[in-house]
Amino acid sequence: VNTSPLLEKLIQHFNRFPGIGRKTAQRLAWYLISRVKTDAYDFADSIRETVDNFTTCQECLILAEQDPCPICSDTDRDDNLLCIVENTSDVYLMENMHEFHGKYFVLGHLLSPLEGYGVNDLHIKELETLISTKKPQEIVLALKPSAEGEATIHYLSELFQKKDVILTRLSTGIPFGGDLEYTSTLTLANAWKRRYRV
Amino acid sequence: VNTSPLLEKLIQHFNRFPGIGRKTAQRLAWYLISRVKTDAYDFADSIRETVDNFTTCQECLILAEQDPCPICSDTDRDDNLLCIVENTSDVYLMENMHEFHGKYFVLGHLLSPLEGYGVNDLHIKELETLISTKKPQEIVLALKPSAEGEATIHYLSELFQKKDVILTRLSTGIPFGGDLEYTSTLTLANAWKRRYRV
Repeated sequence: VNTSPLLEKLIQHFNRFPGIGRKTAQRLAWYLISRVKTDAYDFADSIRETVDNFTTCQECLILAEQDPCPICSDTDRDDNLLCIVENTSDVYLMENMHEFHGKYFVLGHLLSPLEGYGVNDLHIKELETLISTKKPQEIVLALKPSAEGEATIHYLSELFQKKDVILTRLSTGIPFGGDLEYTSTLTLANAWKRRYRV
Repeated sequence: VNTSPLLEKLIQHFNRFPGIGRKTAQRLAWYLISRVKTDAYDFADSIRETVDNFTTCQECLILAEQDPCPICSDTDRDDNLLCIVENTSDVYLMENMHEFHGKYFVLGHLLSPLEGYGVNDLHIKELETLISTKKPQEIVLALKPSAEGEATIHYLSELFQKKDVILTRLSTGIPFGGDLEYTSTLTLANAWKRRYRV
């Protein structure tokens, strides 16, 4: 028995998602086929409906149901603080902490020579437009401290060197609840260098 | 920013799949929204098209595009050998080994008091009909050797005790490439008991 072309196509659709391998894709496809058909119809409808209703905010490039997005159109939020994130889902993470009341900008990608993402894949032009319009006092780089994140932070710091703005980044160190034993030497050495008074 | 009801619904659809937690579901939903809309449309279409074209074979309960399924309607396959599997995806695994040329029967579930699956969730009636029609000489239980699998094997062995049929199960032991160090005591003890001459 060979996999039917229809099923194979569905498996490949699942396989395209980040972090979903061939085996998981097969499992997900079989799950859909095994359940009542209406569940699958509802799922298919939900996909169409959601992507149909989401658009890109022309100011901050967040994916939202309105353009400008709810954050950009919120006059209570502080234009002096701009937080640069990799993508829209990071905005939700930041908002969940209820600490930040400034604006956001979605960079779209991190620099990654290995994955083929260069400077042109980052939304630099839109970022420069936003900065010259809103003139924030501080820009916080909320990017992950990976090789790609560090490269991007380095690139942006050079780019904004001449601009009259304070550039900051999220603190790096040992996560709360983290075990020293399971902390990489790199993280530990960084936490040591950045130790602070208690 | 709260998650929009549309997005929340899509996340919950993904969350419903086995092995897909809330965080992964969010990641998958965001991935769909971030890509070109036609990709998502194609995915939604593929879901509909696939579930529309799959049906249950009335003989062996395999999910297939034909009823009777390609295996049941293949006259070259041996009716004397019947392989009982948990679900259709297991049929593909068995077929991939190109060793088995008998017929299949899909049980639908394993017995699992914890998950609330009892004898009535297993397709026993259909199985008994198939057995009395085809009269296989040997029934192979290709069920996983978990607590649920063992309970199901035990139940089926009692059920078929009086029937004139040889009941077998897949061999249990240390998997090829497996490390003794990472083998559970239960598996090791079983492998010891079932040791065979080289």
